[in-house]
Amino acid sequence: MAPVRNGRVLFNELPSGIPQPGKATVYDGSQTIDPDTVPLNGSFLVKTLVLSIDPFMVGKMRPKIPGVALPTYTIGEPVEDYGVGVVLRSENPAFKPGDHVYGEHAGTYPFAEYVIVRDPAQYKVLENKENLPWSAYVGTLGMPGQTAYYGWKEHSRAKKGDVVFVSGGSGPVGSLVIQLAKMDGCKVIASAGSDEKVAFIKRIGADVAFNYKTANTVDVLKKEGGIDIYWDNIGGATLEAALDGAKFGATFIECGMISNFTNPQQGAIKNLFTMIPKQISMHGFVIGFLAAKYEEEFYRVMPELVASGKIQYAEEVTHGLEPVGEALLAVLTGANKAKVVIEVAKE
Amino acid sequence: MAPVRNGRVLFNELPSGIPQPGKATVYDGSQTIDPDTVPLNGSFLVKTLVLSIDPFMVGKMRPKIPGVALPTYTIGEPVEDYGVGVVLRSENPAFKPGDHVYGEHAGTYPFAEYVIVRDPAQYKVLENKENLPWSAYVGTLGMPGQTAYYGWKEHSRAKKGDVVFVSGGSGPVGSLVIQLAKMDGCKVIASAGSDEKVAFIKRIGADVAFNYKTANTVDVLKKEGGIDIYWDNIGGATLEAALDGAKFGATFIECGMISNFTNPQQGAIKNLFTMIPKQISMHGFVIGFLAAKYEEEFYRVMPELVASGKIQYAEEVTHGLEPVGEALLAVLTGANKAKVVIEVAKE
Repeated sequence: MAPVRNGRVLFNELPSGIPQPGKATVYDGSQTIDPDTVPLNGSFLVKTLVLSIDPFMVGKMRPKIPGVALPTYTIGEPVEDYGVGVVLRSENPAFKPGDHVYGEHAGTYPFAEYVIVRDPAQYKVLENKENLPWSAYVGTLGMPGQTAYYGWKEHSRAKKGDVVFVSGGSGPVGSLVIQLAKMDGCKVIASAGSDEKVAFIKRIGADVAFNYKTANTVDVLKKEGGIDIYWDNIGGATLEAALDGAKFGATFIECGMISNFTNPQQGAIKNLFTMIPKQISMHGFVIGFLAAKYEEEFYRVMPELVASGKIQYAEEVTHGLEPVGEALLAVLTGANKAKVVIEVAKE
Repeated sequence: MAPVRNGRVLFNELPSGIPQPGKATVYDGSQTIDPDTVPLNGSFLVKTLVLSIDPFMVGKMRPKIPGVALPTYTIGEPVEDYGVGVVLRSENPAFKPGDHVYGEHAGTYPFAEYVIVRDPAQYKVLENKENLPWSAYVGTLGMPGQTAYYGWKEHSRAKKGDVVFVSGGSGPVGSLVIQLAKMDGCKVIASAGSDEKVAFIKRIGADVAFNYKTANTVDVLKKEGGIDIYWDNIGGATLEAALDGAKFGATFIECGMISNFTNPQQGAIKNLFTMIPKQISMHGFVIGFLAAKYEEEFYRVMPELVASGKIQYAEEVTHGLEPVGEALLAVLTGANKAKVVIEVAKE
């Protein structure tokens, strides 16, 4: 096989504010690779099939924060997130040609058509005996799904009848939280930023779904009588509304504060004091450190639930690496319609 | 016995900002009472000995917040907090003349020389077999001590060697937290607002004590290598510093945010997002709802620890009800030297 293009999406410059396509990230089609002869040095070569676009990618586009475990991107190198690829050649006995692998821990799958894996410990062979689309394995069966599953199991202490509020309810994390909460017998209130997303939220079982751009979150929570559990994907004014609308003894699961990325000046929380008289517990979490406890259960339980239709998901597929910058922008501004997946290649 | 004066401290008007003596509260010496003949209607009459001054009294000087359990004061009626008195007459068999009683739940002991108790369920007979000063029972053996004890036992999950940061470390809550943390084998960093208070904090065992007005909290926490547990009495910029200085997986016990009372515009927390990548859990709490779990243990364990000198405390005694407004102002601005107690009468 002659050398082929190895298209990549490179981190180009530190963004100020929302990362813009062509500035924070650029597509580079200049590199070539010969899959048959490229030296593997004991590792394995993967052809990328699907990549995930996740809001927290922007969190890696900044100087390292001391004491914070999140890695950062290197300028001139490919951006990274979660992805699935197929092994073409291997010098590592744990990964065989034809295996489908998920680049999982800390989201270090490089945005490139071909990847010689640097650290096999970051990769997992996917069994997929249900024969689900590989894209599911970067969404409801990948990091976003694990985020929802691990966070909910670890922190919600949900009881039947609890009232749960999920912000960002149409995303891959929020939509699974809604369905897990319904399975636990909770009443679910969920918000999203468009009527189309609200319709999806209703379809997957939310009892109350609203468009936060046209309805007032505080009023909705008040009308529903307050919340026992808040799953926060948004932060900012939505978190303030949840503090106002929380019942005594409420649990807050702090999964993301995406509004901080797009409106940093709005990120300050003015009514945090409320957590004292209301005796609220808030739990920040990242999945990496919960994986040891829940990963085996997740891959045992979830694919079957998806295959049987008991857990539903939605995705918006974009083709090729060129539009990655635009896809990230859409996810950060909420212009996407569902979980954004990049299809880089079919098998 | 002829009628005697029943001096009282009345709530006079809603304060804007820090409540000022003579405005938010006024002393009223016009009421009289005849202890021998005043009708008890099945209740009991108490002569007040000591009253506590606590920062959160200001929290009751505002319109009721929907959904929040804290009571509010009524204009023209006595302010309330915690107090100890001696029963003079009783028509309630559970309270006998000569009994010393502690007005405990939710701090509803009225600031008056004589009190006909409205709700006996809010009062507890104190045994005091160690013959400790009654003032201790509104401090380290009263609500502040219970706050420290219950909050620490419920939420700290302290392990030997954990690094604990206590803000407001010289107060009746903070100083007991420091000593409980030391008993659990922790390293304790504590802050206060004067060199005299810092000296007290060192005396009771803090490993690192600093004056937050002359040392930078972020720098101190960085120098000590980060914190595992933060006991927050202050909120605002101190909470932000603790978020910056927290280790991965830290626990924050949110006991008070006194800076919100005095500088509401500084109360917004700008770096709360940090709790997600650092996987921080934050627990707001009020003691009322933990009493059922810990009160028996508290009164069994603590008086002995105080009597033996294993737990130390400091207090600043003010005499009579007239200076109550000034005493509250001192507590809110940090001008006090130690836990402020009002001695209303000796036996």
